[in-house]
Amino acid sequence: MAFVFSLQRILEMLPPDVESVGDFSGDIVGIASLSSAKAGDLSFLGNHKYHSQVETSNASVVLLPKDYDGEPSEGQIYLKVENPSFSLAMICREIERLLMPAPEPGAHPSAVIHPEAKVSPEATIGPLCVVEAGATVEAAVLESQVHVGRHAKISAGTYLFPRVVVGNYCEIGERNRLLPGCVIGSDGYGYEFVENAHQRVPQVGRVVTAADVDVGANSTIDRARFGSTYIGQGTKIDNQVQIAHNVRVGKHCLLVAQVGISGSTEIGDGVVIGGQAGVAGHLQIGDGAMIAGGAAIVKSVEAGTKMRGSPATEMALHNRIIVLQRKLPELFKRFDQLEKSIESREQE
Amino acid sequence: MAFVFSLQRILEMLPPDVESVGDFSGDIVGIASLSSAKAGDLSFLGNHKYHSQVETSNASVVLLPKDYDGEPSEGQIYLKVENPSFSLAMICREIERLLMPAPEPGAHPSAVIHPEAKVSPEATIGPLCVVEAGATVEAAVLESQVHVGRHAKISAGTYLFPRVVVGNYCEIGERNRLLPGCVIGSDGYGYEFVENAHQRVPQVGRVVTAADVDVGANSTIDRARFGSTYIGQGTKIDNQVQIAHNVRVGKHCLLVAQVGISGSTEIGDGVVIGGQAGVAGHLQIGDGAMIAGGAAIVKSVEAGTKMRGSPATEMALHNRIIVLQRKLPELFKRFDQLEKSIESREQE
Amino acid sequence: MAFVFSLQRILEMLPPDVESVGDFSGDIVGIASLSSAKAGDLSFLGNHKYHSQVETSNASVVLLPKDYDGEPSEGQIYLKVENPSFSLAMICREIERLLMPAPEPGAHPSAVIHPEAKVSPEATIGPLCVVEAGATVEAAVLESQVHVGRHAKISAGTYLFPRVVVGNYCEIGERNRLLPGCVIGSDGYGYEFVENAHQRVPQVGRVVTAADVDVGANSTIDRARFGSTYIGQGTKIDNQVQIAHNVRVGKHCLLVAQVGISGSTEIGDGVVIGGQAGVAGHLQIGDGAMIAGGAAIVKSVEAGTKMRGSPATEMALHNRIIVLQRKLPELFKRFDQLEKSIESREQE
Repeated sequence: MAFVFSLQRILEMLPPDVESVGDFSGDIVGIASLSSAKAGDLSFLGNHKYHSQVETSNASVVLLPKDYDGEPSEGQIYLKVENPSFSLAMICREIERLLMPAPEPGAHPSAVIHPEAKVSPEATIGPLCVVEAGATVEAAVLESQVHVGRHAKISAGTYLFPRVVVGNYCEIGERNRLLPGCVIGSDGYGYEFVENAHQRVPQVGRVVTAADVDVGANSTIDRARFGSTYIGQGTKIDNQVQIAHNVRVGKHCLLVAQVGISGSTEIGDGVVIGGQAGVAGHLQIGDGAMIAGGAAIVKSVEAGTKMRGSPATEMALHNRIIVLQRKLPELFKRFDQLEKSIESREQE
Repeated sequence: MAFVFSLQRILEMLPPDVESVGDFSGDIVGIASLSSAKAGDLSFLGNHKYHSQVETSNASVVLLPKDYDGEPSEGQIYLKVENPSFSLAMICREIERLLMPAPEPGAHPSAVIHPEAKVSPEATIGPLCVVEAGATVEAAVLESQVHVGRHAKISAGTYLFPRVVVGNYCEIGERNRLLPGCVIGSDGYGYEFVENAHQRVPQVGRVVTAADVDVGANSTIDRARFGSTYIGQGTKIDNQVQIAHNVRVGKHCLLVAQVGISGSTEIGDGVVIGGQAGVAGHLQIGDGAMIAGGAAIVKSVEAGTKMRGSPATEMALHNRIIVLQRKLPELFKRFDQLEKSIESREQE
Repeated sequence: MAFVFSLQRILEMLPPDVESVGDFSGDIVGIASLSSAKAGDLSFLGNHKYHSQVETSNASVVLLPKDYDGEPSEGQIYLKVENPSFSLAMICREIERLLMPAPEPGAHPSAVIHPEAKVSPEATIGPLCVVEAGATVEAAVLESQVHVGRHAKISAGTYLFPRVVVGNYCEIGERNRLLPGCVIGSDGYGYEFVENAHQRVPQVGRVVTAADVDVGANSTIDRARFGSTYIGQGTKIDNQVQIAHNVRVGKHCLLVAQVGISGSTEIGDGVVIGGQAGVAGHLQIGDGAMIAGGAAIVKSVEAGTKMRGSPATEMALHNRIIVLQRKLPELFKRFDQLEKSIESREQE
């Protein structure tokens, strides 16, 4: 994964108010963490936890927050910026363009495109993709082995990684990134127990994603029973997340890996849900709520509330309960002693 | 997703004892929830939670339970049935037939079918499917990019959605629905630690599913170490469920999303396991047991028992514990006060 | 899944110090559990739990531990070995070779191999696989519908099951087994909230696996933000496991199904993590730590420690807490009584 950037080139990618301290005259040929960086590498302080590693880092170039007050060593340069992590992202964007350039438009001869599909001449349809009848593909990239179902729509600027499935009638918004193996528009899980068997409830709705949505590898989003399962603008979904039928997720939410959202639940804007958390069905999660990893949400949550635990309670109470649970052995002992001392006094 | 149904057509799909109240003369062109329905839409009351929304709904046609006693507004019709949710399912079955008709029999020229595979002329083998040597495909549908391994069998009436994998020697029963990306017959997870390394235990068994089984998107069912991992008739498995080697699941069970069942566990008939619950290995779960979402089952469960918590206990006890846990801060305070008051009295 | 082994053939697969008790003269034609075995089957006692089933088993041949002291019935043979489960594995290895022979080298005509890819003549590239520009495939098997990204490397002896994705620049070590649907090298989940939106942090690193790694069906391992996400030698990963960017996993670890490891966490050698457990980001898990199924690890863990619970504590403490939690109803009652009795005495 080779690249070579001059210091000058790096500076052009950073905000204009960058402050340089120290001196480095070679090329930057790698990016590494503070502790593993070697000469020629660029590194950064993005998490306070690693603060003490800056001083001993062998990185030639280090991105630091404005208020960092140490001194670089000989031949090393510190670049102070508002947000080192985001500045690094800007640099990585350039590296990504070099290392993983977007493929050229056009359809690979091995792709199976139905004559009734509408595919933009600006679209890339990679090897062994399937685009079914009535589907629309705007100026998007289908990398390889992707399936786009009947009457589905893939909007401009969207990138479908290998083996993504977009089901019939689903609509993917602009600039989405659907990671390998995710499934958009599988049947919702709906049955009625009639005549001693679970009778399938046909799921005739779809999935709609707004602009700038990311969906992680092997995540699944079910089509609605009717109407739409909906993912709002700018929401980012991690790997192996499960979103059931008729769920609505608001704007700019973060759903971390292995989260599960049950049917018909509505999630507001700016909600953050930690890894492996689960949300029961038919609930409302208010704007800006923060749900800790592993939490089990069984009641609706007010806007701005922080929740933790299984079943979840307000985070402050839950944290208190955790501390006290660990004191239970002591409490039981104290209680036994107290009972005994009272008993013995009564017998006096 | 356009369709147009006359009221007459809708009535034909409902049970004969339907009661009509009110009047509507137009066409039904959509299905929507009570709160989002517009004129021309059909809606339904399927969950008591939404009872109050019936009165203000703009739906032209509303499916209601027999005992609903409100009155429709002008130009609106109420259709009272035993089970509104199931009646809606009957209507959606018709819509599904219109919108997502089953593909025609025959093999797509891009499919790779081994000359030693036996494929029924009534089967549909969609684009870019692979059917390996010795496999049997009856009158089933393989939608696209499906993999059917050597000597595997796909029975009549079964529908394999895009990118399903059925491993070597596995048998899929009649009328199964395998949703996109699910994997039937991956190797079981078995190792022996010998000579300082985990030595793989070859998994030479298979997976067998009975009739009317559904498996959700990206779910995984491992082949047995030997013999069969077995899924019983009418059992419905949601997305991202993991079933380990040698598990036996009975008839008419529901396994909700992200459930995990460890190796060699036996699950009875009619068991319901809520989302994200986990069941340890080598256990027996009795008929009709209900396991709450997120529960961790570490001991066998008697038939008909309701379990909750991690590790799980009987649901009534668990619910009591949850209430008392939230009173722990108060209990510790009361205890401190009591100790102090007793101490001070002793010093008197 | 037919095979026929003579007793002589079975004995050749077992360690030389095997002890035979009893007599069986037919062929072995199946393997089954103690309780379901019939005449002609081989069975084994691998878990003490099933000890009592040996006596009543109809298996013709039973693998038993050296210290088992019962007697076989007429026409039945006991074979006593150090490790019956591992001895069975040796037999199953032979069965696997018979039933699922490795495919012949060569590329299927339907595979799409970029002219700039380097593919060994000893490699098997199955139907509908994609091998992108700059990729290297040594003497490995790509079964079918596999995707190998640009500049990725698949080392000798590695087996990629159907529909595996290996992303750009990732390196898969020797003798790995990647099960169906797993995704190696999806983008890490990294965003910076800038200008009221989650801005994607490009992930320009890769995934590197050492030798003898197994990855389960539909598991996902994210590429590093920069540098490498790393899986150490001999580590075995079960189905639906999620490993985030920049994680390092040591040698000979076991990660059971549905485990999630958050970004930048380092896991030592010989660590065992039970199903559905989660580990937060930026932590250190020491060598030989054992983490129970369903545990939530939110702090670093010392080497050799056993952890359980959510959030996890040391296992002994956690087990004690679980017992006491179940006594909370009783404790609250006792406390109420004590308070009352003290009050009443004070009023005397």
